[in-house]
Amino acid sequence: MEATIGILTISDRAFTGVYEDESGPAVVQTLKNIISSEWIPVRSLVPDEINSIEGELIRLVDEEACCLVITTGGTGPSARDVTPEATEMVCDRMMPGYGELMRNISLQYVPTAILSRQTAGLRGNSLILNLPGSPKAIDQTLIPLFESIPACIDLMGGPFIETDPNVVTAFRPNHR
Amino acid sequence: MEATIGILTISDRAFTGVYEDESGPAVVQTLKNIISSEWIPVRSLVPDEINSIEGELIRLVDEEACCLVITTGGTGPSARDVTPEATEMVCDRMMPGYGELMRNISLQYVPTAILSRQTAGLRGNSLILNLPGSPKAIDQTLIPLFESIPACIDLMGGPFIETDPNVVTAFRPNHR
Amino acid sequence: MEATIGILTISDRAFTGVYEDESGPAVVQTLKNIISSEWIPVRSLVPDEINSIEGELIRLVDEEACCLVITTGGTGPSARDVTPEATEMVCDRMMPGYGELMRNISLQYVPTAILSRQTAGLRGNSLILNLPGSPKAIDQTLIPLFESIPACIDLMGGPFIETDPNVVTAFRPNHR
Repeated sequence: MEATIGILTISDRAFTGVYEDESGPAVVQTLKNIISSEWIPVRSLVPDEINSIEGELIRLVDEEACCLVITTGGTGPSARDVTPEATEMVCDRMMPGYGELMRNISLQYVPTAILSRQTAGLRGNSLILNLPGSPKAIDQTLIPLFESIPACIDLMGGPFIETDPNVVTAFRPNHR
Repeated sequence: MEATIGILTISDRAFTGVYEDESGPAVVQTLKNIISSEWIPVRSLVPDEINSIEGELIRLVDEEACCLVITTGGTGPSARDVTPEATEMVCDRMMPGYGELMRNISLQYVPTAILSRQTAGLRGNSLILNLPGSPKAIDQTLIPLFESIPACIDLMGGPFIETDPNVVTAFRPNHR
Repeated sequence: MEATIGILTISDRAFTGVYEDESGPAVVQTLKNIISSEWIPVRSLVPDEINSIEGELIRLVDEEACCLVITTGGTGPSARDVTPEATEMVCDRMMPGYGELMRNISLQYVPTAILSRQTAGLRGNSLILNLPGSPKAIDQTLIPLFESIPACIDLMGGPFIETDPNVVTAFRPNHR
């Protein structure tokens, strides 16, 4: 079973064409480096509007059947940043550990990492994960997160994702 | 005043008898090692059903008058895991620090600790605390938590809990 | 543009005059040490009543136009402690990182830091931040937080706050 992974860029300026979306392609490239099993990316781009974000997250999970949706952008304290709120609205259950871990990782690089409001949660059998918007921070956080993401998707009955051990080794505990 | 402590195992498979509950006895044994003052355990077992968990948490706090209720199981991302949601439903106020601390502690052992959605909260004068389900993780997290649990129960006007300093020393700050 | 900063002491005993408010003046003194640009403190004192706290937070943000409101007190597990609940009620969006960071910092000093339920959030263009009540803990947490607070206020279009680099250096990332 191939894994379908949604990559959702959330940015007013990329959406209106003020600049090109660099974050979405950065997430795809990092995933290509990490994942060694078969997978299909489904990319999308919405402005920083809570209804648009919610609608696109629902579509990626319910219609595209993504086992994992990674958002990038919209997690800061600026007035337009509402990605965490949209994520919480569409999720049944929250995964507080990923937000904590990403802030802890990013704090090793910049003290303003603490301003990131990113979260993660589950909608049905899909994991939705907010990443920061900056391409550099994407690499710093997404790679270590893949130590646990494949096990999370296993637990939800999703596809078996394998990683390139030269990039990151997926840890799978022995459950009874 | 003796402390009454609820120990609630949450597991479909232990409830239906597919296997024996090992987590509940592991919590009781760890508490016996930690606590040197008088206390009474009240054990219970429910399936991974949100209504059953909520009802049993309410009973342990409101009827059994437990100053502390420790749950084990049901905190992961599997479809049936709803212990944190049930805990949040019955609590008046949340204690975010305990979930953060347990994930940080468990991350020293396994990267998948981040998948644990465990939380803690207050219902009236009682502290409800979600522990992981695995007996090994129970010891790793419950012992260091007792550095602060007795002070928490003091602040809520509960019984004075003493610990065995060979296992863990309860810290009590000087409040004015 | 001068920064108006609200300092709200939340304490039944200070409010009724059982003892003098030491926390509010401690926050003001620490802010004086930290901030080198122009700013105006607006101090206030309310009891541990959720409606009083909410009303005063709203007044400080909406009427006094504070870009930053710092509360002190009411974040523990005692029955009367409801500062985090009041904060969450008046905020549009939460900033989970600050609570996590403050607990991590305070844990280096006392294990009971984990009992602190403090949080932070945004109401309009204002950052509301819960500090612990003890004057010693105020210094320990508020100084390192100012590495990121000025950047947060920048992102919300607020006044440019400068810090004394002998106390703490405000970090400002280069946003495109």
